[in-house]
Amino acid sequence: MRPLAVLAFGGNALLRSNQKGTYEEQFQNVENTCRQILPLIRWGYDIVICHGNGPQVGNVLLQQEAGRHAFGLQEMPMDVCGAETQGAIAYMIETAMDRVLYAGGITTRRVISLVTRVEVDPKDPMFQNPTKPVGPFYPAEEAERLAAETGAVYKEDPKGRGWRKVVPSPTPMHISNVDIVSRLAREGKIVVTCGGGGIPVIWEAGGYKGVEAVIDKDLASALCACQIGADALYILTDVPKVYINFRKPDEKAIDTLTVAQAEKYLAEGQFAEGSMAPKVRAGIHFVRKGGDQCVITEAGQLGNPACGTRIILK
Amino acid sequence: MRPLAVLAFGGNALLRSNQKGTYEEQFQNVENTCRQILPLIRWGYDIVICHGNGPQVGNVLLQQEAGRHAFGLQEMPMDVCGAETQGAIAYMIETAMDRVLYAGGITTRRVISLVTRVEVDPKDPMFQNPTKPVGPFYPAEEAERLAAETGAVYKEDPKGRGWRKVVPSPTPMHISNVDIVSRLAREGKIVVTCGGGGIPVIWEAGGYKGVEAVIDKDLASALCACQIGADALYILTDVPKVYINFRKPDEKAIDTLTVAQAEKYLAEGQFAEGSMAPKVRAGIHFVRKGGDQCVITEAGQLGNPACGTRIILK
Repeated sequence: MRPLAVLAFGGNALLRSNQKGTYEEQFQNVENTCRQILPLIRWGYDIVICHGNGPQVGNVLLQQEAGRHAFGLQEMPMDVCGAETQGAIAYMIETAMDRVLYAGGITTRRVISLVTRVEVDPKDPMFQNPTKPVGPFYPAEEAERLAAETGAVYKEDPKGRGWRKVVPSPTPMHISNVDIVSRLAREGKIVVTCGGGGIPVIWEAGGYKGVEAVIDKDLASALCACQIGADALYILTDVPKVYINFRKPDEKAIDTLTVAQAEKYLAEGQFAEGSMAPKVRAGIHFVRKGGDQCVITEAGQLGNPACGTRIILK
Repeated sequence: MRPLAVLAFGGNALLRSNQKGTYEEQFQNVENTCRQILPLIRWGYDIVICHGNGPQVGNVLLQQEAGRHAFGLQEMPMDVCGAETQGAIAYMIETAMDRVLYAGGITTRRVISLVTRVEVDPKDPMFQNPTKPVGPFYPAEEAERLAAETGAVYKEDPKGRGWRKVVPSPTPMHISNVDIVSRLAREGKIVVTCGGGGIPVIWEAGGYKGVEAVIDKDLASALCACQIGADALYILTDVPKVYINFRKPDEKAIDTLTVAQAEKYLAEGQFAEGSMAPKVRAGIHFVRKGGDQCVITEAGQLGNPACGTRIILK
């Protein structure tokens, strides 16, 4: 059996903050990222690609808001917006990856993308403590009115840009059709799944139901990697390694982190929340559940077998 | 081997023109349609679901337009908008179908949705003759400016609502990953694919590339049915049968149409373009390529084995 890797594409694999965000720019970014995973493909890895959707779902929420004002269009809930971005981003990854495979002379691999729901627990404590800001900024009165009207929670932006809806970020529990993801990947298909961390659903009487929430895409990727028995989880970000004392004079790049070391650094607050901390936690989760290693690095480093920071059990 | 049916859900399976288009309404519509296909499931059919996206992609285009004005957000091309609607609608169908299966006590079937590209021929004559109006209405001067700026074609709306972009509606040639659609369906999975007729792509040097076009969802469903060797194609619409002299005093419902009869009626203009005509053409295409029968009917009739109008070879 070939080794199986799950790759988690970060937001910057698609939209970059220093760009305007045109389709051409986004497609170019995706194609560049896909090109950088060619070494793994050449080494014979079976591959599953998960990806973020932060900037994209942000845009959909703003467009919905604008569409309601301008044309009276109904807004769809967060879960549907997330599903929209799964379609759009998977399509871009499929098309870009195809081109990269073709240019690389690889004719035996192809790409397939699944719309993916991820089950969360309605009793997850995060539902009592929504923390993830999403959508447009509002003046205080408007946020108050919306909160009263919809029951959603709004919090003031720490940078003073206004008030913003916050949604919970519950822990992913189960990935829909994960057995099929595994089977297709084991046949050599490059499978795109768990876009944006997956569409969050809870089980209630009668079936699944979407919820207004955002699942961390690194945690969802780690869960996917566990559930399909992947050998390695690659979390792609915009730095080549994990650092302690990041951006301080005594900054130090880390080559290898055991779970015990990683937990110590997490407890010390070495890794920023919403940035490196969830990546390290995802790596811990994966190796604890039996994965060989989690590598956190930037896509451009993948050609080097010793790239990035490796999280291992011990 | 069980019989295999492709079901094409029309736009009214989701959004209805007499509703506001809230999420709750749309989900209810989808769930009702899914409930109505239970008889086919109970009769042991393997099932593939294709669906339209007209109203949904229309809303995405309006939201993008509004988002550009209000927030300066980049608009994505039609192919990406189509991909967005594939994600959103497939998610709704998956979730609704799951609930229907659960309520019906069917535990052996489940749903899986693929993001689906459909290849069209860049030499398709429709590219020289765009006919499908999409997106917002503009005043003449604005449409002229946009046409000059983007190279897109704008035409005046026959109902006087302004000028609107028109895109080509090329013939679908090949469906991505159709072999996997077939395999999963033959295992008993209910597979959602070809949303909105599929994301239109052309082959050019180096790989596929998205194009601004709309593929007719009935033709895409017929192609899918051919390519997976389906026994039956069910095209679900808002009338129980096909009629000649539709809405005239001598209107007559048709039980069975041979290809020859269907072509004669088409030539006489019995079936409205953009409505019944493409459905009948899709049925002709399917039975010509070896399908047993195409049934055009409304979802609520599916429990009756003699429902709808059956198109057969002869």
